[in-house]
Amino acid sequence: MTAAPLLIDGLQYCRWDRQTLEDLRTGGVHAVHVTVAYWESARETLTRLAEWDRRFEAFPELITRVQSSQDVRDAKTQGKVGVFFGFQHCSPIEEEIGLVELFRRLGVLFMQLTYNNQSVLASGCYEQHDGGVSRFGKEVIREMNRVGMVVDMSHSGERSTMQAIELSGRPIVVSHANPAAWHGALRNKSDDLLRAL
Amino acid sequence: MTAAPLLIDGLQYCRWDRQTLEDLRTGGVHAVHVTVAYWESARETLTRLAEWDRRFEAFPELITRVQSSQDVRDAKTQGKVGVFFGFQHCSPIEEEIGLVELFRRLGVLFMQLTYNNQSVLASGCYEQHDGGVSRFGKEVIREMNRVGMVVDMSHSGERSTMQAIELSGRPIVVSHANPAAWHGALRNKSDDLLRAL
Repeated sequence: MTAAPLLIDGLQYCRWDRQTLEDLRTGGVHAVHVTVAYWESARETLTRLAEWDRRFEAFPELITRVQSSQDVRDAKTQGKVGVFFGFQHCSPIEEEIGLVELFRRLGVLFMQLTYNNQSVLASGCYEQHDGGVSRFGKEVIREMNRVGMVVDMSHSGERSTMQAIELSGRPIVVSHANPAAWHGALRNKSDDLLRAL
Repeated sequence: MTAAPLLIDGLQYCRWDRQTLEDLRTGGVHAVHVTVAYWESARETLTRLAEWDRRFEAFPELITRVQSSQDVRDAKTQGKVGVFFGFQHCSPIEEEIGLVELFRRLGVLFMQLTYNNQSVLASGCYEQHDGGVSRFGKEVIREMNRVGMVVDMSHSGERSTMQAIELSGRPIVVSHANPAAWHGALRNKSDDLLRAL
């Protein structure tokens, strides 16, 4: 017996009103990865998460919180869209490793180590030089592995991404990008990288 | 059949090292209300909570998180000390009502509306004039009732405390104070107040 597939939207950033959430449900989406921060500080990120608390309160028939894969299956059973959060950059943790676990407990299941530019953790895909994963980046990958937050290298450079694949004790993801073989943009991923992934 | 009583330390603020936690367990304490903030901002409070994450990680045989009364019973069964958090003042929510629910989800089960002085929510026991619960204070009490965060008026004035008792749809507490009839300090509570409570 094959289980019916789960349909998960790998990354969205949009206007999160009732219509959007209804459209997701109508479209048969069981869960969606919602970007809650690009460049926000820790404090600003709390406000973004509090806005989502209000949405969970306002639309209980439409959406439900996701902290685990079982929550996605439950969302499907209940006919709701499961919502989980991600950061497109590491700014919310503000070089304080303890914030990784705190945000994980608030539903942040994904974090990109860089957003196009160099960060304190790794290098972005638009930098001329990609020095790979930094000392602190190695610590953060280990912490993300420990608490169950997925490393996402969508906007990271080739070398950083290769190193993250090697360093991470759990599978990493590229939630949104295309093969460079299709279109040679800096944001897209080489065949070598895709094979390693 | 009467259930064996639970021994809960109503409020502690001290040096939280292994020795202290072992002493609590040796003393038969099943759970402890830990002060994580007096005057801290939201951001600073995250750091305090992250420090506790590290303690839960360092002493798994000694302490366990408490989010509900069942968690206290479970702590007792496991021979551990349950830990839940409280604020002695409202500074961590920074006049943003959404932070009440966020901190509740991070294990903050109690908040005092004031710490001796007037706050944006109510008035403290050392103020010459106690104007009672403010407009925002009424909203915050309602929100605390909704998310299950206990209103604590230990350091609040008489009028503010009487109004909080009336306004709150759930029981409030005075976690640490004495009857004024025993000792007439401003921090202690009148017989009228204790009866209303």
